[in-house]
Amino acid sequence: MEAIKQEFSVAYQYSVFFTEHLFDTNNKLLHNVLKELTSTSSSKILFVIDEGAARHHPDLIGKIRGYFESHPGLPALCAEPLLIPGGEQCKNDETYTRQILEAVNQYGIDRHSFVAAIGGGAVLDLVGYAAAIAHRGVRHIRIPTTVLSQNDSGVGVKNGINYFGKKNFLGTFVPPVAVLNDFEFLRTLHIRDWRSGIAEAIKVALIKDEPFFRYIESNAASLAARDMSGMKEIIYHCAKLHLDHIRGGGDPFEKGSSRPLDFGHWSAHKLEQMSDYRLRHGEAVVIGMALDVTYSTLKGMLSQEDAARVLSLFLRLGFRFYDPLLMLNLDAENRSRSVLAGLHEFREHLGGQLTITLLEDIGKGAEVHEMDEGLLLKAIKFLGSASVEEQANVTC
Amino acid sequence: MEAIKQEFSVAYQYSVFFTEHLFDTNNKLLHNVLKELTSTSSSKILFVIDEGAARHHPDLIGKIRGYFESHPGLPALCAEPLLIPGGEQCKNDETYTRQILEAVNQYGIDRHSFVAAIGGGAVLDLVGYAAAIAHRGVRHIRIPTTVLSQNDSGVGVKNGINYFGKKNFLGTFVPPVAVLNDFEFLRTLHIRDWRSGIAEAIKVALIKDEPFFRYIESNAASLAARDMSGMKEIIYHCAKLHLDHIRGGGDPFEKGSSRPLDFGHWSAHKLEQMSDYRLRHGEAVVIGMALDVTYSTLKGMLSQEDAARVLSLFLRLGFRFYDPLLMLNLDAENRSRSVLAGLHEFREHLGGQLTITLLEDIGKGAEVHEMDEGLLLKAIKFLGSASVEEQANVTC
Repeated sequence: MEAIKQEFSVAYQYSVFFTEHLFDTNNKLLHNVLKELTSTSSSKILFVIDEGAARHHPDLIGKIRGYFESHPGLPALCAEPLLIPGGEQCKNDETYTRQILEAVNQYGIDRHSFVAAIGGGAVLDLVGYAAAIAHRGVRHIRIPTTVLSQNDSGVGVKNGINYFGKKNFLGTFVPPVAVLNDFEFLRTLHIRDWRSGIAEAIKVALIKDEPFFRYIESNAASLAARDMSGMKEIIYHCAKLHLDHIRGGGDPFEKGSSRPLDFGHWSAHKLEQMSDYRLRHGEAVVIGMALDVTYSTLKGMLSQEDAARVLSLFLRLGFRFYDPLLMLNLDAENRSRSVLAGLHEFREHLGGQLTITLLEDIGKGAEVHEMDEGLLLKAIKFLGSASVEEQANVTC
Repeated sequence: MEAIKQEFSVAYQYSVFFTEHLFDTNNKLLHNVLKELTSTSSSKILFVIDEGAARHHPDLIGKIRGYFESHPGLPALCAEPLLIPGGEQCKNDETYTRQILEAVNQYGIDRHSFVAAIGGGAVLDLVGYAAAIAHRGVRHIRIPTTVLSQNDSGVGVKNGINYFGKKNFLGTFVPPVAVLNDFEFLRTLHIRDWRSGIAEAIKVALIKDEPFFRYIESNAASLAARDMSGMKEIIYHCAKLHLDHIRGGGDPFEKGSSRPLDFGHWSAHKLEQMSDYRLRHGEAVVIGMALDVTYSTLKGMLSQEDAARVLSLFLRLGFRFYDPLLMLNLDAENRSRSVLAGLHEFREHLGGQLTITLLEDIGKGAEVHEMDEGLLLKAIKFLGSASVEEQANVTC
């Protein structure tokens, strides 16, 4: 009997919106987005909110309630918002996934209803994952509250939780139905979170967009001083580059060998885990980029001047590009518990051949398929060799 | 700031193959399929096997090992196959999902590696789910061993497990990378499983394909007597109709209001659960179809002759189309624990408006958006009113 060949495509579309004061009664954005997406009069919406965002915005829950009261005809606000502690730790605890699933069950959230997540990247990842596996996929709206989630993780197609101590071991590729970026949330961020989000903008600038890197360089002082207008530009441009990459690569769900935008990430993921999430994701990504920039120079791919320019930008923004964890367990017998083990875990998570993005110029990434451990150790030693202040003026 | 619109499509393709003695060393099918799908030399494969299949085919594990030994260059058989108890109960117990995830972690199965499931629909659903959520999707091969999974559930795009006592509460839409139907597995099936699989073929015939219904009618006696050649035809044709439906509807992942092929299923799902899975899925689907066929007639949509023809076919194949569970809890105060609660759960699982497929002719389904409880009770009473033998000659 002849084989039966099945072929089809699934189309996805969603928009990333930018606003301020999303839940102000006279802000029509949420109303319009929900009206456009709602296909049935029995539709409901459940909010899941990052405790950090709720704490910094004590009127948030009341405003959400008020918004739905003054906009009749929207999906029914079926329950009090569910509060979830923010930060990467929430992805380590299955309890929260279960809490969201229980609410989906209890309140009868179906595939035409919505789960809206308000929070940082970790909460968005977690809520997106729970929504993706409930009833084979409840519609998921993201309302990112951090720079990092507004410009990078929150606008993409991935969700997941940590398992077996491995970052995003469980997850799916399922896009949200809408992303609503409300800049107002950024005003109450801790300076570490404000700054951390810039890391992903630098990342995408370094591998794809030299003029964008120059923009960040020339605005470094005002960004470090929390200038909102520069930050808005950075978020918009970075989100756009991220969305273009997902769409333009022709393989948005990474089924083949297309790569995510993951410069500096092989060591960053491992450092986050080794630090027990003391390091923010963006902070770890800066260290990871510093390592791979230095490695690129040692490898003869990138000029020393360019490497110094990158490290200097990190410092001007207030980042540290070295952490003592980089030196931990580097002796041969413990190396599998060192940052270098991140190479193996990174390959395993993405599958297939090891592929690492290095730099051959600012704005131009280059993929390699192996990393020289000796050179990596040299790069680590270089980063640790000088004090933070000195490093800014040192070339490797 | 203007919204950024994201739009892309994800293309899926996989083939459903038909063979006998898949693991015989000289059967090249598995070799060719794996060669075609393997993109990296570090690729691995993990088999997860339904204990029922392993018990009925005691040489299965040895043959798998032998196959990979005599075909070098295939993905590495990285571990002993994992055995999972078959039947719907395995989907009720999270332990098995976790066991598969642990194996994925322990043996380093990555996104370019394979998890191959050998078994009935329940095991395939469970393994497919675990594969879909590990690393955001490990490649999944299905080797269905029952009629039902070879002609219906195993060839589709759904996977899932039961949660909160609800069928497929957790799941995803992720197609397999290949389906390998080995008819040889059907020879050792229990007669109830052989028969049950025919239910889904009757279902798709009833709502889509009158000539196929006539084919099943005219082969009823030999099918009941386990004639393999008729069964092969039925499986091939039913699988093809199922694949056409997924592709042809333009909404394979049921994001909009397109419906799965679910005639008779609203009550079948509930009856399976109420019977604590004493009823096989196909057995429950037959009762569900009998109910909706009778209802269609009482509603004036379908002729009494056609309804009698359907009920008569069920009897000739050895099915029962009535179960006392249909009568359980029908009094007003307990109705939420009766089969009628299946209507609500069905709507909730699929989302949106209630949509039930009824029949207006043999080979022609018709969708309705409400069910009259009074008529449903009448239909239930009709099915229960006469003995099984009598019912064959009774028109409602």
